[in-house]
Amino acid sequence: MATTLQEHYDRARQVMPGGVNSSVRFNKALGVPFYTERAKGSRVWDIEGRSFIDMSMAHGAALLGHGHPAVDEAVRRSVEIGYVNSFETIYHEELARKICDCVPCADRIRFCGAGSEATLHLIRACRAHTGRDKIIRVEGHFHGYHEMIYIGGFPGPDDLEANRIHPIPESPGIPPQFADLIVSIPFNDPDSLEAAVRRHADEAALLILEPVNYNCGGILPQPGYLELARRLTEQAGIVLFFDEIQSGFKKSTACAQGEMGVTPDVCTIGKSIGGGFPLSAFCGRADIMDLYKPVGDVQHSGTFNAHIIPVLAGLAFIDLAMQEEFFERLRKLEQRFAAGMDRIIADQDLNMIVPHYGARFDIVLGRRTPPVRYEDTFCHDPQKMLKIIRGCFDRGVYFHDYGGIAVHHGYSIQHSDDDIDEVLNVLGEVLKGMKQELC
Amino acid sequence: MATTLQEHYDRARQVMPGGVNSSVRFNKALGVPFYTERAKGSRVWDIEGRSFIDMSMAHGAALLGHGHPAVDEAVRRSVEIGYVNSFETIYHEELARKICDCVPCADRIRFCGAGSEATLHLIRACRAHTGRDKIIRVEGHFHGYHEMIYIGGFPGPDDLEANRIHPIPESPGIPPQFADLIVSIPFNDPDSLEAAVRRHADEAALLILEPVNYNCGGILPQPGYLELARRLTEQAGIVLFFDEIQSGFKKSTACAQGEMGVTPDVCTIGKSIGGGFPLSAFCGRADIMDLYKPVGDVQHSGTFNAHIIPVLAGLAFIDLAMQEEFFERLRKLEQRFAAGMDRIIADQDLNMIVPHYGARFDIVLGRRTPPVRYEDTFCHDPQKMLKIIRGCFDRGVYFHDYGGIAVHHGYSIQHSDDDIDEVLNVLGEVLKGMKQELC
Repeated sequence: MATTLQEHYDRARQVMPGGVNSSVRFNKALGVPFYTERAKGSRVWDIEGRSFIDMSMAHGAALLGHGHPAVDEAVRRSVEIGYVNSFETIYHEELARKICDCVPCADRIRFCGAGSEATLHLIRACRAHTGRDKIIRVEGHFHGYHEMIYIGGFPGPDDLEANRIHPIPESPGIPPQFADLIVSIPFNDPDSLEAAVRRHADEAALLILEPVNYNCGGILPQPGYLELARRLTEQAGIVLFFDEIQSGFKKSTACAQGEMGVTPDVCTIGKSIGGGFPLSAFCGRADIMDLYKPVGDVQHSGTFNAHIIPVLAGLAFIDLAMQEEFFERLRKLEQRFAAGMDRIIADQDLNMIVPHYGARFDIVLGRRTPPVRYEDTFCHDPQKMLKIIRGCFDRGVYFHDYGGIAVHHGYSIQHSDDDIDEVLNVLGEVLKGMKQELC
Repeated sequence: MATTLQEHYDRARQVMPGGVNSSVRFNKALGVPFYTERAKGSRVWDIEGRSFIDMSMAHGAALLGHGHPAVDEAVRRSVEIGYVNSFETIYHEELARKICDCVPCADRIRFCGAGSEATLHLIRACRAHTGRDKIIRVEGHFHGYHEMIYIGGFPGPDDLEANRIHPIPESPGIPPQFADLIVSIPFNDPDSLEAAVRRHADEAALLILEPVNYNCGGILPQPGYLELARRLTEQAGIVLFFDEIQSGFKKSTACAQGEMGVTPDVCTIGKSIGGGFPLSAFCGRADIMDLYKPVGDVQHSGTFNAHIIPVLAGLAFIDLAMQEEFFERLRKLEQRFAAGMDRIIADQDLNMIVPHYGARFDIVLGRRTPPVRYEDTFCHDPQKMLKIIRGCFDRGVYFHDYGGIAVHHGYSIQHSDDDIDEVLNVLGEVLKGMKQELC
């Protein structure tokens, strides 16, 4: 008999806190983590042998779908090469060049593993470049789990005002004085942005933001906001930093900066660029990037940076992504899903909205118009969201849970029209059953 | 015609700072990075088609050698599974359990990618556990490239005293006030240790050190030093943190803590545990580890944490390492190499020493006895070291360069006796040619 999720959870948490290697892998909607056996295309199987359409896709990293033939081929090549762990190859340069050709701000690039590493190391160069230490950030935007920036991003409704004066560390164990270097402002508020830049013009090293706020309601920048950010930071000598870990290569190879026509000084990209494998990158203007050793004096090193498997899988990804039909196909999936959701919401008159951008979408409960500011998502009820996720799970569709919050989900290039239709069927059924709660 | 290292460097640095993804991959001894084509067993080939005996072995990560059949099999299994990116599997629990069985302090464990991630996340839990923020650290010990601890570790001779009062950030871009949370003391000095613990008893969250100081001259703790550290931290309620990223699984499965008979509260392990692939871990007492979400409130998350390929390769590694002959074989290589080096040094009466511990050794120039303190390595001349590395390179033996410093090198389980003899021959020849400079 197969082990159940619960049985494995009981065993796993004896040796790993919460039975997982990433806190968000505990799925509140299930009451246990989602332990898996295998995956293929758009599908994932759990250890109980059940099959699901995967609407997490590794939080956006598996944009190629599971077990893509081009990725398998990259892995096979890595075996042939013998891995050459911690050495560089010609493939590193090839991938670097292709990404620099795509990303408007990227004169030069460095690869690392986790997205958190990318923001950490790039913040360091921004500080070295300006000789300043403060970071202006935006509410509801996420930039990694490290002490440089895991502060002041997600205040509760009662802490909103306090957070703008003294940004609140987002985990125990972060020294409170680190918050002195953080300035947290509301997104999409030109006056706050202007005031913050003016007030901290001589102290701020960077302004960091997500051009698409997938991590909170899928909020898009209002017209003119990014342009204002570009103009103000340029005037004040502050580095404009777009965190495109999530938005990069989700709608086109130009990333959100290219799609929206505003070029930052530097940016991070991640998730899908490694073909599903651990690869993130930071890139930007040559004069800032060349601050890194051995050209400049800023440290960025690591045994495991840019391992050959993610680099070759990254080449597989970028070669596919550069073919016109790739993002065309994803656009069709996006349209099919969005149209279907609009229909379901209209038919049942539900008080919810599904903002979407490229291959990812957010589910926001409690409002019918797209959120524009962080606090516009306070209407979202996590308990109801957990119920939706659970309902879909019981019907063979896997949405990842991050604690019920209004965050992103998405499809891969291997999702079929039938997959989307099946997801819509299931969501329609679940939402219909919750109509009373969702009107 | 094959591309030369120089030609590829010229191309690569157009798109990557210094033409590399890790600053230390620029090899000063060569004047260019060492770009590779493939690797197998103990050997690596550069892009010019030359073959070398590899004495870096991915800085210790490739303890299994390049392209080990058991690792190839783990990779093949990952392909079969379809990678299940960012999900957990039964293999995660299996690896966690096996490592917890080996490592004395490990009740529970979490896996991540880079070693720097491991120390960053574990420092956070130490702070949450104690409600204190200061870190007592030791000169010459290395704990990762992040702002929490990349401060005060490697002062120059002229800064030694100043560093003990105001620890010096080790990279531009690290805010100076972060140094207020660091207390840097000399290694192997019981009085300084006692004074620091006494002075900061109410402020210090942790005492962190490398039980084997591979990163600086291979310095070993003097008898009684670790025991004193254990006793003092216990009395003061300070977490004792062994950084075993490098020392773990290099001499036995018990790690240095087991070999030396002193159990810390928590530790990091890394490098070889992923079979050469990006895998690091942090582990320790259940009450500290269970501070992490979803059990406690401390954040540790990441899309790429514990990817299935490193986890399966890690199982391949641990299963091999748990066989008695594994470390027996490495011990024989160590003895063969150490005896050979002693002979060369004695025969030519060279003023140098090669401290060794398990599968790694350091080369220290300018002294004939093992260094005991950090400043004992100031005699080491980086320029002469670079000349040695270059001489070996020209004769087909690759030692990695970290800027000429007195740091670690080593062998893998796939190195043969003949490999060791060839390395000794080459080193003997190179050192003989430098006899005048090295006496």
